[in-house]
Amino acid sequence: MRTQYCGELNASHLDAEVTLVGWAHRRRDHGGVIFIDLRDREGRVQVVFDPDTEETFATAERVRSEYVLQVKGRVRRRPEGTENPDMATGEVEVLGKELTIINASETPPFHLDDDSVSEEHRLRYRYIDLRRPEMLQRIRLRSEVTRELRYFLDSNGFLDIETPILTRATPEGARDYLVPSRTHPGEFFALPQSPQLFKQLLMMSGMDRYYQIVRCFRDEDLRADRQPEFTQLDIETAFMDEDQIMTLMEEMIRGLFDKLLGVKLDNPFPRMTYQEAMLRFGSDRPDLRVALELVDVDDLMKAVEFKVFSGPANDPEGRVAALRLPKGCELTRKEIDDYTKFVGIYGARGLAYIKVNERAKGREGLQSPILKFLPDEAVDTLMQRTGAEDGDLVFFGADKAHIVNEALGALRVKLAEDRGLMEGDWKPLWVVDFPMFEKGGDSGRGETAEQSRGSPGGSWTSLHHPFTAPKEEHLDLLETDPGACHSRAYDMVLNGTEVGGGSMRIFRTEVQRHVFELLGISDQEAEDKFGFLLTALKYGCPPHGGLAFGLDRLLMLMSGASSIREVMAFPKTQTASCPLTNAPSEVSDAQLRELNVRLRKPVEKETPAS
Amino acid sequence: MRTQYCGELNASHLDAEVTLVGWAHRRRDHGGVIFIDLRDREGRVQVVFDPDTEETFATAERVRSEYVLQVKGRVRRRPEGTENPDMATGEVEVLGKELTIINASETPPFHLDDDSVSEEHRLRYRYIDLRRPEMLQRIRLRSEVTRELRYFLDSNGFLDIETPILTRATPEGARDYLVPSRTHPGEFFALPQSPQLFKQLLMMSGMDRYYQIVRCFRDEDLRADRQPEFTQLDIETAFMDEDQIMTLMEEMIRGLFDKLLGVKLDNPFPRMTYQEAMLRFGSDRPDLRVALELVDVDDLMKAVEFKVFSGPANDPEGRVAALRLPKGCELTRKEIDDYTKFVGIYGARGLAYIKVNERAKGREGLQSPILKFLPDEAVDTLMQRTGAEDGDLVFFGADKAHIVNEALGALRVKLAEDRGLMEGDWKPLWVVDFPMFEKGGDSGRGETAEQSRGSPGGSWTSLHHPFTAPKEEHLDLLETDPGACHSRAYDMVLNGTEVGGGSMRIFRTEVQRHVFELLGISDQEAEDKFGFLLTALKYGCPPHGGLAFGLDRLLMLMSGASSIREVMAFPKTQTASCPLTNAPSEVSDAQLRELNVRLRKPVEKETPAS
Repeated sequence: MRTQYCGELNASHLDAEVTLVGWAHRRRDHGGVIFIDLRDREGRVQVVFDPDTEETFATAERVRSEYVLQVKGRVRRRPEGTENPDMATGEVEVLGKELTIINASETPPFHLDDDSVSEEHRLRYRYIDLRRPEMLQRIRLRSEVTRELRYFLDSNGFLDIETPILTRATPEGARDYLVPSRTHPGEFFALPQSPQLFKQLLMMSGMDRYYQIVRCFRDEDLRADRQPEFTQLDIETAFMDEDQIMTLMEEMIRGLFDKLLGVKLDNPFPRMTYQEAMLRFGSDRPDLRVALELVDVDDLMKAVEFKVFSGPANDPEGRVAALRLPKGCELTRKEIDDYTKFVGIYGARGLAYIKVNERAKGREGLQSPILKFLPDEAVDTLMQRTGAEDGDLVFFGADKAHIVNEALGALRVKLAEDRGLMEGDWKPLWVVDFPMFEKGGDSGRGETAEQSRGSPGGSWTSLHHPFTAPKEEHLDLLETDPGACHSRAYDMVLNGTEVGGGSMRIFRTEVQRHVFELLGISDQEAEDKFGFLLTALKYGCPPHGGLAFGLDRLLMLMSGASSIREVMAFPKTQTASCPLTNAPSEVSDAQLRELNVRLRKPVEKETPAS
Repeated sequence: MRTQYCGELNASHLDAEVTLVGWAHRRRDHGGVIFIDLRDREGRVQVVFDPDTEETFATAERVRSEYVLQVKGRVRRRPEGTENPDMATGEVEVLGKELTIINASETPPFHLDDDSVSEEHRLRYRYIDLRRPEMLQRIRLRSEVTRELRYFLDSNGFLDIETPILTRATPEGARDYLVPSRTHPGEFFALPQSPQLFKQLLMMSGMDRYYQIVRCFRDEDLRADRQPEFTQLDIETAFMDEDQIMTLMEEMIRGLFDKLLGVKLDNPFPRMTYQEAMLRFGSDRPDLRVALELVDVDDLMKAVEFKVFSGPANDPEGRVAALRLPKGCELTRKEIDDYTKFVGIYGARGLAYIKVNERAKGREGLQSPILKFLPDEAVDTLMQRTGAEDGDLVFFGADKAHIVNEALGALRVKLAEDRGLMEGDWKPLWVVDFPMFEKGGDSGRGETAEQSRGSPGGSWTSLHHPFTAPKEEHLDLLETDPGACHSRAYDMVLNGTEVGGGSMRIFRTEVQRHVFELLGISDQEAEDKFGFLLTALKYGCPPHGGLAFGLDRLLMLMSGASSIREVMAFPKTQTASCPLTNAPSEVSDAQLRELNVRLRKPVEKETPAS
């Protein structure tokens, strides 16, 4: 039905007779002539209808926004002065000779150029929203990204293997989506939070190198830009160690960025230990575009009178850290108050600071409500250690270490964003040498499905997941000092976002049992939940490891989108519903009866939205 | 950890020092020397340990089946007379110098060479079963097939776009898998039976060419080798007609077979109307490797005394057909009885036949219990029309047409299989010109998710699905004679299996409403179920169409496997359960409470299988 895409036309097509199909993006009548911007996947071109071709002109007069048209005409140069440099096709236009209205359109609920449409409305009419060039571009980038990832993996001997969606509860620790079984009344499938156990089984099956671009499911409250279903690039290999895996994976990502964005990422990616990342950046996914760093000052504060500092400085679980902001003296009182509120989100009870007006003047040149609590020596060393210069401001965090890290870690990124202190566009790194376990609580980690929080029953929880292998040289620490035991895990971080994470896995039954024990998973529970894995480990399990990339998040970074919803064709809302199809929806009692379930509380009937 | 894969070694590696990893497939001790067949994804190689390397030899003595090993050694030519031509590596062996037991294995539940293991047992220990070379080969072929399909589609401008798994009930008509929503109590997501509506919406979104290799779900009783979840290659295009789509798709499949199997399929694929397929082969997915054809003889039987023939011959819905079996006189009484039972499966109440001993002799040369009922002229014409020769046998079917078609259609394939009458290896074709509707009942169709049986409420049901477009020149027949209206559907058939099917879709609201009406779908029901599609049709819907390939079935054909379970890494059993993970399984009441559901009947606790 077409000879070219609209968006492909340029001066090389001058005088060509072309047939185009697409949507009427805009119609303008000007000087007795009709201009229609015809749009397709590849872009737009201006089509001109003049009254000389009477019948065609009459048809053109009937055209409205989003009509589906077929146009036959001749490509010509636009008259001088009317070229449109903002359009790829802006040098040319098509003189329309024949025009067919293939399909009409009612007035669409919003125009494609309207940026003020609510997200709910955009999702309800997603098929119109997706016609926007920027949405098309993101969906296309997504297709290109998966293509490039696949080509790389295919050519490196990885097999694309499908694992079940209807399966058993998996160990990631988030809430499962459940599916009642009709043929096994009272029993349920779970949708996988990741194919973790299946990919390990595939290594035990001798597949050697596996990948899958796979849907994963988590029934979480959708804070923090999450979706009930998300996509990960899931990878597992046998007989490779973490060095080899990291090297291969960063080669893949470098190739991807080079090919699709023309961006050269570092070669190799820097590697940083978890400990260093926490000390310098207060985060295990540091944004290295931000040069600001945390500086430890516990030692200076142990003896000071100021309890807010000396308390955490003397607490083994506490931390006192400083963060220097260049030119921070420019901050207004209100800005400082706002930052104080900002760190409050992360549990910080205040945000002490010192303004460095003129360092050469000593105490006189400094300005701060807390200055009076600090002895000269502490102040001097502090100035030296932070490298503060005239006009700078030094913030302080003093609390439990995890609060200081989260608060100052977030503050350094926020300050950099607010004050234009980002350096470079793309800063990848590997974070390695994670602790195997942490005490008790929720670490707040868990951006990809390869992470979980272990069993809530245990005194220790996994920083990654219960199948993560400890470092060989730390095996003894499982007995003697689990908290000091490091894992063979690695996270790929890009611009402060964890885009991928993985580990070498435990491949020996006794180690796996030991780890379950430390996590407070009883033999019975282990048998019930992971019995098939424990059994499989007995029959010739090779050393293996892998990782998973969060595809949606990677796409969001690559496309500069503000949310993962912007890189998915049909996302759910923040309340896990779909305004387009009205899913989820009520079902008949007959259906429920077949599945051997009933509703606990009947639903009050609402008039369904039309 | 390795320098080569085991299966890669050959004479070109003579004298090379190699490091191998893999599984001990077999150990044999012979003449004071230990032979271990070391196996990995690429194959096996024989490793020899002699007592000269004492420590290594001692280690080798400890090796048992399925131990995971690392071997360092030198490649050498096998001594003359001990080459193994059945092994790709059979010219060479590795003289083992160092041996590390990476992991031990308990005695596996079955040996990989044991073909007598029950399917249940194979699925329970799938990670061992998948180590069999033929299983590895199938999983690898699957990965290669999807790779080739993707490459073809990528290079033809198709975008790989993901559609939701948690969605709304789709219109295919089979039973849905449901997922209770926690955030919307009393409401349910459905798992898609296909992305049919989403792919149509993507065309309305201007994506132009879409594909996805996508999981689909149907909660059916698993007769006929089906699975609760299966995979289809799903395709949709805008602004292409059925001719262009079929041409492109057969080019894709031809390329696939050529590249991966070295098979040259017909170019172009033959096209056959539904009517011709039913008349000649009694099936809309005829196996063209079978030369036997049905011959219509209604006209000859209208006036015969034999009611079994004259009844159907005079019934507008009846059919009398003959099927000639060359050399059929060889059939024993028992064989004929068995075939009579066979057609009984399809509802045939008998299987009349005539043996042609010596045709030149007229009636005298024929032998049949029914001969006495047939006048000379009918017999003569029958012999002519079927082309019967001496020694042949002619079978008859006489009943409602659909019973005759199913019975003789199946019989011709069975006869060809039993008597070696298959011709050629691969016979693809397109079946086209399907009726839009059929009266009432279940046509027994529905091999891929693109087919359904329409609404049970209507007097008409769809032969494909309710979004299939009628032929433009048949639009009037929707009013006057729906039964005579043909659709713009097309099925790709290969060796008697429908591997793909699709259609041009309805792209105008009024046609869609009309078709819903004929299917007995009320305005309210249409609005409730497909309202979003009807709305979308109003806002500039382009002409579009596509198809879906059943990937599992295609793989089964290509690999020569006997079941789709043999081409899936982790299939379910015929009762939709997984012996490996024990899915589905019970869940806690707390989980159900969160989902606002409870069990109708409590489940009796069983001791879980270990």
